[in-house]
Amino acid sequence: MKFYYFSGAPSPRKVGIVIAEKGLEIPTVIVNLREGKHRTEEFKATNPSWTLPVLELDDGTCITESLAMVHYLEQLYPEPNLMGIDAKEQALVLMWHDISTLEGYLGIQERYRNSLDFPEGRALPGPVSYDRIPALVDRGNRRIQAFFDKLDRRLGESLYLAGDRYTYADIAGYVYCMFAKRVTGQDSAERRENLTRWRDEIAARPAVLDQPG
Amino acid sequence: MKFYYFSGAPSPRKVGIVIAEKGLEIPTVIVNLREGKHRTEEFKATNPSWTLPVLELDDGTCITESLAMVHYLEQLYPEPNLMGIDAKEQALVLMWHDISTLEGYLGIQERYRNSLDFPEGRALPGPVSYDRIPALVDRGNRRIQAFFDKLDRRLGESLYLAGDRYTYADIAGYVYCMFAKRVTGQDSAERRENLTRWRDEIAARPAVLDQPG
Repeated sequence: MKFYYFSGAPSPRKVGIVIAEKGLEIPTVIVNLREGKHRTEEFKATNPSWTLPVLELDDGTCITESLAMVHYLEQLYPEPNLMGIDAKEQALVLMWHDISTLEGYLGIQERYRNSLDFPEGRALPGPVSYDRIPALVDRGNRRIQAFFDKLDRRLGESLYLAGDRYTYADIAGYVYCMFAKRVTGQDSAERRENLTRWRDEIAARPAVLDQPG
Repeated sequence: MKFYYFSGAPSPRKVGIVIAEKGLEIPTVIVNLREGKHRTEEFKATNPSWTLPVLELDDGTCITESLAMVHYLEQLYPEPNLMGIDAKEQALVLMWHDISTLEGYLGIQERYRNSLDFPEGRALPGPVSYDRIPALVDRGNRRIQAFFDKLDRRLGESLYLAGDRYTYADIAGYVYCMFAKRVTGQDSAERRENLTRWRDEIAARPAVLDQPG
């Protein structure tokens, strides 16, 4: 296998934490997003969507979506379990992963990619050019607040997002928290007690500490 | 189990096709989206995100994201397999599902929910009100075209999205195709030969034919 990675971006970071939690050593190719190394004809052969991370399998198949590669790694290296033990827990992990991605991550991306600091024409990832839409900056800010309110409510009901155990849903939610903090310059956990408790606990895990970004 | 469903909307339809493919009989509660029956205090107890479908388990747990409920049903009723046999095929199903959802479905939703035909204040699903942003109608149209170009290219390489076999990735992609046709009034498969071949084949499946919407 080969892992295409860049430490500064949320999606590679999610999969990077999974690899660290499982103690895996996968040969890693750094693709420098800040220098635009993902937007090249060379990288297009690996991933025509120009996104990171990518997990290249030994037969050359390139898996390009984070959830798909985490599921693959979980099948090959089941310990420690991160995707749920039984059908119900697995469903709750997928559910809280998708809630976090669709309601949280997409809102943060809106806020980030439509602001004047972000290069014009790149309001969505990938090779097609989309102009900034300034109204999405405000909408993104509102989505981020609604997302953190939802996480905080959930974390008042259970210790972790999918239940009483740390899973990939927490890894995704945590990475989105830190991405939001970087993008907005604000600490989303502030005044949200459950979110603060959970965030600080995850931040102290060796697999999370070990990773820059 | 109990299944909260409405036949006119794409996400319930995806899970409804899975239930039909597996030949399951699950007690079903119709929640009429057109009459706003999902935007009530009563339904909020089932799903605070006010979305459909929902799969309520026997212990009262409500699973609210389509992928999570399809995974759950696949674990309980593995035949016919729709989520992949081995780790690699499972990863490809998840990958093409997520590509279709993030690049296709979200673009169609942009086009749909920001047009003047759609009620104001509901540009995103859920209880938080977001105003229409007219620029997203054009952007949605462009995303839809880019998505269908990508599906057509992929379906020139393999018979189905995840490989040589019909899976949940095809169910999702097909439902998005039909949703785009309804929203835009245009046949997305037109002039795209691979997409037409695949779409027509899926449309003729008994589990797909049986379902209205």
